[in-house]
Amino acid sequence: MSLDDKATKPHDRLAAALNAEMNAVDAMIGQRMVSEHAPRIPEVTAHLVGAGGKRLRPMLTLAAAKLCGYDGPFHVHLATAVEFIHTATLLHDDVVDESLQRRGRPTANLLWDNKSSVLVGDYLFARAFQLMTDTQNIRVLSILSNASAVITEGEVLQLTAAQDLATDAGTYLKVVRGKTAALFSAATEVGGVIAGAPEEQIRALFDYGDALGIAFQMVDDLLDYSGTSDVIGKNVGDDFRERKLTLPVIKAVAKADAEERAFWSRVIEKGDQQEGDLERAMALMAKHGALKETRAEAIAWIERARAALRLLPEAPLREMLDDLADYIVARVR
Amino acid sequence: MSLDDKATKPHDRLAAALNAEMNAVDAMIGQRMVSEHAPRIPEVTAHLVGAGGKRLRPMLTLAAAKLCGYDGPFHVHLATAVEFIHTATLLHDDVVDESLQRRGRPTANLLWDNKSSVLVGDYLFARAFQLMTDTQNIRVLSILSNASAVITEGEVLQLTAAQDLATDAGTYLKVVRGKTAALFSAATEVGGVIAGAPEEQIRALFDYGDALGIAFQMVDDLLDYSGTSDVIGKNVGDDFRERKLTLPVIKAVAKADAEERAFWSRVIEKGDQQEGDLERAMALMAKHGALKETRAEAIAWIERARAALRLLPEAPLREMLDDLADYIVARVR
Repeated sequence: MSLDDKATKPHDRLAAALNAEMNAVDAMIGQRMVSEHAPRIPEVTAHLVGAGGKRLRPMLTLAAAKLCGYDGPFHVHLATAVEFIHTATLLHDDVVDESLQRRGRPTANLLWDNKSSVLVGDYLFARAFQLMTDTQNIRVLSILSNASAVITEGEVLQLTAAQDLATDAGTYLKVVRGKTAALFSAATEVGGVIAGAPEEQIRALFDYGDALGIAFQMVDDLLDYSGTSDVIGKNVGDDFRERKLTLPVIKAVAKADAEERAFWSRVIEKGDQQEGDLERAMALMAKHGALKETRAEAIAWIERARAALRLLPEAPLREMLDDLADYIVARVR
Repeated sequence: MSLDDKATKPHDRLAAALNAEMNAVDAMIGQRMVSEHAPRIPEVTAHLVGAGGKRLRPMLTLAAAKLCGYDGPFHVHLATAVEFIHTATLLHDDVVDESLQRRGRPTANLLWDNKSSVLVGDYLFARAFQLMTDTQNIRVLSILSNASAVITEGEVLQLTAAQDLATDAGTYLKVVRGKTAALFSAATEVGGVIAGAPEEQIRALFDYGDALGIAFQMVDDLLDYSGTSDVIGKNVGDDFRERKLTLPVIKAVAKADAEERAFWSRVIEKGDQQEGDLERAMALMAKHGALKETRAEAIAWIERARAALRLLPEAPLREMLDDLADYIVARVR
């Protein structure tokens, strides 16, 4: 997503409004990923952390805390912890997915190796929990350890559901809630908790993050069949090649006739993929309106996210979070 | 180690003295490794957790807490958390080491695959932190998140030091403190912390666990060149084949003449290992007293562990911890 694209403006405005805090997060990331005893650790993390990621999750934590009137220092710790957990899951996902590209660069496990991806991910995870203990707030530890468990359950569920055409939209939602939405909702929720916000605001922040994360993943899954590599930062058709049961596939399979079902069974269940199969899959999705329906569902979740925001204090930051929600689905408009 | 071996008695007596608590830990392990959304998770963990591990680390936490007069419920949570962290590191180590045997069974990654080892390890790690938040004690969270970071640093340091003949005893100690002693010392320390013990007792518990863990790893590294597969639960010579710079190798290399050095360079640095090389390595260790010296160092650490115990309340449990220390080195007497 290029920066002069109109659609990036909400994200940029949020980054500008949180400029001082985001700089503090950057500085803390640099400090905390250093290892006295194992100097090679930052080599691996610098690769990912320095790759110009959108820093969307830490920004959500900072925005949530400030929106609820927080003026202490610990939202920076929590935002850093959230980014570390996210980076750890990317590192471990690289081992898992054997994907070739992440944020437009070769993945860490190709640069170094699988062993480092596992261990450095573990290191960042441990560092995240150290940052949380710095806040002395047991509730944020509870929220983020719960989220960490749910993230992993989502990934395991995705593994076991992969290549299984019986996977339905309900299972897909569980996977998405786990692998993506759990960290979004925890990121916004801990912002409210550290600010000491009223329970209904904390709940609204959770709901906003949850719905935003679900929509975000739906759009991501949609782009995998409709984007271009330079826009989505990974290869179009990666999910197809990995035989993932994402919502567009689930919807196309649900409407498949016998011959189409045989096609899906061959390419997804048996993994027997040939030249032109990705194009055939995309054509079937178009025929059955699978991409259009996925997009409509993503928009519905964005509407829920925006509804939750209305329970939070009216402020410029709230408008930016609202625009951000809108921007998530603008990528597929 | 067979149960009718005289040397197992200290461990057995400790297990008997902590019988009710160890049963509670077993029950909690069973409850907490269940995943509602990803039922395949316990399949992997049951394999490891049900493999009849010694449960040494959780026993240390329980013993430390009771020795300091604790009568609440949370030492069971902490002992379970410690076992989960240990199991998570074993799962991730399986990915790392590609070892063929662990506790006498095929490793989880051969039964299922690498992906599961990574994700299920992550799940147990997250579950461990959930258990800690149950105690509402921020200090134990701080201790165990620090230990988790140090464990990973030790593993990364071991990776980078592997195959490098320049690795010295100082680096070895750092690696051992990380990969083994950090969890032992955290296990005993959190027992004292949850009991609200005086600071000098908490420090003594840390020192006991630290020294015990260092000796434990030294003995393990020694047995890799002098034990038999049924005693050590892994293959003799595994470290040699993985080209690890353990203390026996470091000591033999330090005294090597030019021809011996060429041998070490070939088998460890270049990894060009042939039939009879393991036997040659063992002969060189015997020639230079490397195994004997390693054993003497392990005994010295055990003496430090026992000295630390003297700062703790006199009680039958303290005697058992003392006997346990003795038992660690009895394996190589």
